[in-house]
Amino acid sequence: MKTILKTRHFVNLESLSTTEINSLIERSLAFKRGEPAPDFSGKTLVNLFFENSTRTRSSFEMAEHRLNMHLLPFETATSSVQKGETLRDTCKTLEAIGADALVIRHGATGYYEELMQTLNIPIINAGDGSGQHPSQSLLDLMTMVETYGTVEGKVVVICGDLQHSRVARSNADILKRLGAIVYGSGPIEWYDPAMGIPYLPMDEAVEQCDILMLLRVQHERHDGTTRFDPAVYHTTHGLTDERMNRLKHSAIVLHPAPVNRGVEIADELVEHPRSRIFEQMKNGVFARMAILEWCFSTKSIKGDDADDNTN
Amino acid sequence: MKTILKTRHFVNLESLSTTEINSLIERSLAFKRGEPAPDFSGKTLVNLFFENSTRTRSSFEMAEHRLNMHLLPFETATSSVQKGETLRDTCKTLEAIGADALVIRHGATGYYEELMQTLNIPIINAGDGSGQHPSQSLLDLMTMVETYGTVEGKVVVICGDLQHSRVARSNADILKRLGAIVYGSGPIEWYDPAMGIPYLPMDEAVEQCDILMLLRVQHERHDGTTRFDPAVYHTTHGLTDERMNRLKHSAIVLHPAPVNRGVEIADELVEHPRSRIFEQMKNGVFARMAILEWCFSTKSIKGDDADDNTN
Amino acid sequence: MKTILKTRHFVNLESLSTTEINSLIERSLAFKRGEPAPDFSGKTLVNLFFENSTRTRSSFEMAEHRLNMHLLPFETATSSVQKGETLRDTCKTLEAIGADALVIRHGATGYYEELMQTLNIPIINAGDGSGQHPSQSLLDLMTMVETYGTVEGKVVVICGDLQHSRVARSNADILKRLGAIVYGSGPIEWYDPAMGIPYLPMDEAVEQCDILMLLRVQHERHDGTTRFDPAVYHTTHGLTDERMNRLKHSAIVLHPAPVNRGVEIADELVEHPRSRIFEQMKNGVFARMAILEWCFSTKSIKGDDADDNTN
Repeated sequence: MKTILKTRHFVNLESLSTTEINSLIERSLAFKRGEPAPDFSGKTLVNLFFENSTRTRSSFEMAEHRLNMHLLPFETATSSVQKGETLRDTCKTLEAIGADALVIRHGATGYYEELMQTLNIPIINAGDGSGQHPSQSLLDLMTMVETYGTVEGKVVVICGDLQHSRVARSNADILKRLGAIVYGSGPIEWYDPAMGIPYLPMDEAVEQCDILMLLRVQHERHDGTTRFDPAVYHTTHGLTDERMNRLKHSAIVLHPAPVNRGVEIADELVEHPRSRIFEQMKNGVFARMAILEWCFSTKSIKGDDADDNTN
Repeated sequence: MKTILKTRHFVNLESLSTTEINSLIERSLAFKRGEPAPDFSGKTLVNLFFENSTRTRSSFEMAEHRLNMHLLPFETATSSVQKGETLRDTCKTLEAIGADALVIRHGATGYYEELMQTLNIPIINAGDGSGQHPSQSLLDLMTMVETYGTVEGKVVVICGDLQHSRVARSNADILKRLGAIVYGSGPIEWYDPAMGIPYLPMDEAVEQCDILMLLRVQHERHDGTTRFDPAVYHTTHGLTDERMNRLKHSAIVLHPAPVNRGVEIADELVEHPRSRIFEQMKNGVFARMAILEWCFSTKSIKGDDADDNTN
Repeated sequence: MKTILKTRHFVNLESLSTTEINSLIERSLAFKRGEPAPDFSGKTLVNLFFENSTRTRSSFEMAEHRLNMHLLPFETATSSVQKGETLRDTCKTLEAIGADALVIRHGATGYYEELMQTLNIPIINAGDGSGQHPSQSLLDLMTMVETYGTVEGKVVVICGDLQHSRVARSNADILKRLGAIVYGSGPIEWYDPAMGIPYLPMDEAVEQCDILMLLRVQHERHDGTTRFDPAVYHTTHGLTDERMNRLKHSAIVLHPAPVNRGVEIADELVEHPRSRIFEQMKNGVFARMAILEWCFSTKSIKGDDADDNTN
């Protein structure tokens, strides 16, 4: 029975076992309750954001700070990426210089596949093209579990731009694995049957759901061929005052933000008691602390490991 | 007699009592003399600069460092502001993530009014449009008090672009409150009678003043309709060698910088013994330490508080 | 015999004595072996990069971190440089605010000459126009000495864009001073006889050299008048598989990076056992630690100092 050590990359949730995901949720909640964070003061981390971000980036930076990590500054705009350097060479450079982990957001779906072959330090995926956004998925799960204790048997409706959202894909897959009942809603032309979730019009959705996950309309990901009318979207698919009143008493509303106020959700509802939008941001820091802790935990793979759903 | 705690925002000087302003000046000078700084190592601060800056931003960052604060990096150019997120949502996000205070420079005059309604953490105004620049005003006052012991009875001439300068407005108001005699100078078409200070041509100004406050010509704030000739400006309104010689022996020269050398002041005079320009930059760090200390001091408002000039 | 203290600027290698250079190499290697770094926790440093960079900037930042220095953030893109402030005034501002040293990369050759007259804090040159890149030169030397124990008597071939490379000039000069036998190679139209090194075609070069220093083709420094064909360059002057096989068994290959894979060197050879390219990046951190330590070491110049080759 040989034991080998592997670098733990956090690139998506689907490659984690259910046990691992539940344990990450548990650790996130424990950090929120005030459990002392591990001290990673000897570790250096680099955040490589090739796409704009406030909350994901700041949230990671706060998590890194709470774990006492050293943050090596990196701005893509002033890096050698501008001289045509490949992502792979940039990352290998940072590894050579002494980085202990890289948090990366990049426009290319699955950018991390090649990196996982060549780097010996963890890659933490902070969003890849139209692929995944697993730290967002984890904080969403954490927020649901915080409210309900579990997601098993809960009705989750994901409403919005299902085709372009990385949050939707990550979340639908993992929610089903954890036993939730998942529906899609929003414009039917943005509904993607390939996601394997049934469609509900918004007016039915609000009455059935325990958790309403609103997605951001991604103006910046559309090619501009379709005319998009924010007011029409709001009336037909948005969370209006009227619809908020028809939600179950216990239901909660999630949104990955930034919110287009008056489009996905009425302006005055963003801070409604049922909205968890700012709580999600708070939770994100704890979720990312759990992710970083997980990446730096030694992983031994034994020949007879029964729960080897990881990659 | 009820006692409530209020968040202390530092957005302008006019809302502070004279006692508070004098106490801020005193603390600034104490820090400069080497008085130990408070330890705010548990506090996280974000600097949001929506306009370019070297000295204000670096000065705040140095002050934050001396107080042992944690600085969460934030670059507007790579934030979700680029996706159309409002200032309010960006700030609420940072508060949710765990920021304990925000230092903000923004192009919209009075941008902080709305934020003060919704945020529970201090906002420190590092410049708002054509409004205020109160930390600059404080460091100017500190520099004057350092030289003269007081500004009471001193003749201050503010020379330059009185209409577009936020420094001019802040300073003229507060200087008058503190007992100084304030004049305006510079191009008559830039003189603003609404500021309530009499006009003096530069050649008279230099002979009468104890403190000559030169303002930066704000090329970037003009609309380009007026032809501006730097050489003519220098001859008519600038501090030339000849005018420097006619200043009182004890007089001092201030400029908020960056200096347009050869326009507001002759190149070789920037480091003249009477010039306090680089001393102002040095002082700025201590003034900002005093401001941050003030914001994090508990403030109890009692029903019978006599000196409640604050808002 | 009077003793004066001078600010120690690190702007090029030619102004250092051979003793100083050897001592810097020695300290670099000592840090790599794990010798404890000095604690400069009271010192504040600013990195001013007016040209894009990943490895030089990150490498300095890691070195600064290992010496416990405080790093004051500075981005040229959001500084007052955008308002037309001169480099000199920007640097004097940072000195006034409390910076203890400045690391500068700037497009103007010899930009530091004027600064050395006016600043009382060390300037560390991280690359000036088509001038020097002395920290790169030091890490190159360190890598050679690490392999061979000395560069004396070793054959070094510098291959590539000799006219535009700041690395080439720095290295050729210093290598000759340290006793190496230096040749140039690459396109004959880029060969510069003024550098005082004989020319060898690449096919001869690979057979004779102990150290092959490949230079990056600086697309961004050419004016675009000459047609450049990467495939032709690779066949004629690049390190192909076939040429790698003809290198001496003990020879090593250096490249300052970023590498144009398939141009200066075949893609699959970048991580060849004879390639020191990623080792150079690792070494760069230690070399920069040695440079910073040197700058902050007190230097006393005595009237009878025999080895005063410094400026």
